[in-house]
Amino acid sequence: MTYVIPPFDAGAARATARRLDRLTKPQGSLGRLEELAIRLAGMTGDPRCRFQHRAVVVMAADHGVTEEAVSAYPPEVTAQMVANFAAGGAGINVLARRANARVVVVDMGVRTPVRAAGVLDRRVGAGTRNMVREPAMTLAQAEAAVATGQQLAEQLVAEGCDIVLTGEMGIGNTTAASALTAAFTGRPAREVTGRGTGLDEAAFAHKVEVVERALALHRPDPADAMAVLACLGGFEIAGLAGLMLGAAAQRRPVVLDGFITGAAALAATALAPGVGTYLIASHRSVEPGHTAVLQQLGLEPLLDLGLRLGEGTGAALALQLIDAAVAVRDEMATFDEARVSERLDG
Amino acid sequence: MTYVIPPFDAGAARATARRLDRLTKPQGSLGRLEELAIRLAGMTGDPRCRFQHRAVVVMAADHGVTEEAVSAYPPEVTAQMVANFAAGGAGINVLARRANARVVVVDMGVRTPVRAAGVLDRRVGAGTRNMVREPAMTLAQAEAAVATGQQLAEQLVAEGCDIVLTGEMGIGNTTAASALTAAFTGRPAREVTGRGTGLDEAAFAHKVEVVERALALHRPDPADAMAVLACLGGFEIAGLAGLMLGAAAQRRPVVLDGFITGAAALAATALAPGVGTYLIASHRSVEPGHTAVLQQLGLEPLLDLGLRLGEGTGAALALQLIDAAVAVRDEMATFDEARVSERLDG
Repeated sequence: MTYVIPPFDAGAARATARRLDRLTKPQGSLGRLEELAIRLAGMTGDPRCRFQHRAVVVMAADHGVTEEAVSAYPPEVTAQMVANFAAGGAGINVLARRANARVVVVDMGVRTPVRAAGVLDRRVGAGTRNMVREPAMTLAQAEAAVATGQQLAEQLVAEGCDIVLTGEMGIGNTTAASALTAAFTGRPAREVTGRGTGLDEAAFAHKVEVVERALALHRPDPADAMAVLACLGGFEIAGLAGLMLGAAAQRRPVVLDGFITGAAALAATALAPGVGTYLIASHRSVEPGHTAVLQQLGLEPLLDLGLRLGEGTGAALALQLIDAAVAVRDEMATFDEARVSERLDG
Repeated sequence: MTYVIPPFDAGAARATARRLDRLTKPQGSLGRLEELAIRLAGMTGDPRCRFQHRAVVVMAADHGVTEEAVSAYPPEVTAQMVANFAAGGAGINVLARRANARVVVVDMGVRTPVRAAGVLDRRVGAGTRNMVREPAMTLAQAEAAVATGQQLAEQLVAEGCDIVLTGEMGIGNTTAASALTAAFTGRPAREVTGRGTGLDEAAFAHKVEVVERALALHRPDPADAMAVLACLGGFEIAGLAGLMLGAAAQRRPVVLDGFITGAAALAATALAPGVGTYLIASHRSVEPGHTAVLQQLGLEPLLDLGLRLGEGTGAALALQLIDAAVAVRDEMATFDEARVSERLDG
């Protein structure tokens, strides 16, 4: 399958850069806010792009690898947290409200279906299989999960969404993300595996071994991204990769959250390198594998707040910086308008 | 003069920490947002503190040291930018609006008085004197500027303000801030002097030499903070130090901006070490001296966005993280409320 991703619009980016240089501030003095405004113009093709309708897509699924005792939490927490998202009580609900973003909760394959109002049923299966024994999913399931994400992006854009934030929930999914990161970056499991939501030393050593066993069993070839996704899995991760493909195809910026959504971005860019143009790294997670992910993607995160919650919380926080960048671009006075003198050597 | 600053309320901080640990997230997984909520409780003495009324106090003044050609901008830009603040067209206006903070513009000693609606006249003089030739201000002026800041804090609190953001404008004030930082930290001028709003290599070397000459002339004693302020000056910097003293005395959190407000914080904590309890570092500026300031204050900034504008812009951006921390604390469901299982070993 080939994915058509439009290129960065350098002309729109230049137009924004020119406007920023006319505003009443030393050139470049708003640092990364200015870079962000310029990148957003290049992504959207619009030097005055606005982000009125925004969605945090929180994809949830269960992971067969939880059989290996890789998480400090029982697997039923995935479904319980999906219900919490639907009820509006989770961290992402609070932070999305503050950022005027709606939360789109998607069941991509929770073990027991979550039948709560507002949860989109996009189930590919009842949780993945245990990747240390067999492929987490079939190739057909991986393709279905990616296609589901793409279709959801198309639906959201059709509904008017102009920026897509990514989030996830899935007990065990840091293990899948570590395996995927090792597969796509070539780094050893030990470097890209972390403590997830709170493992002690022994449990951490065990988690590294689990990732190593999965890699030894499947010997994933990073050139075959769909097969890598199938072996090491995560219905929510494959769905998020598809969501990124779909959003990028329609020039919608995609705000990554932490390590799990970053692993999905590795898959998405392996499937279609052009997707990278549309990715914004919201924050640097405390998960050590996340730094490897960001390096591979060539992205510098906006925030570094010691977050390790997931759900899209970092993306929602970064959306406020994106809004600030847009507001600066549109609302500040120019030197001429404010009759402020320019540089002596300018 | 002695300043009475209430201590950190450890009980209120613990109450907030306990609540955060009951919310539906792994303990500590919201990282610095959680630390922030805990510190805010300790500052205010209220585990459910809210920040409804917030002000960015932008103090402006001119600097005699601009005679030494230390800035890329002509000194009249100070007054022009004060007019821009009053008209609502500057970066701080845009970012304060987004953060629901009002901008309080204070003329602490601009060369030519700025008679625009909404500019508070708190002039201590018509700009400081040139610190490489004589003290920037008299001791009486330094005391008057500090007292002015304290009185303004009292006035703002009386008007209902419950968090104070700091900002500044003053062509030449990075030179004053570098000299103050060298005086209060004991570091050499070369380490704490930067390029301000955009100097080239030769102009930068000259600026370092100007700071060195001022230090050699006055031999400031960091134990006599008021004398240090007087010699190395900045009416706006002394005013901001007073503002911090006044806000801390009334348990109001103070959000620092960048290098200049950081230098003011060095003066404030030298006058009354307890002020440090009430300071929040919004961001790390690209000015190299700012890192020395933050180390001396023992503060880790929330943001690192390559900003070097000043005005309070970094503080206004960080206010949104403060709001996020408060929202998480108050709006997330607890494990019991959401019926989510806790850690297996919990």
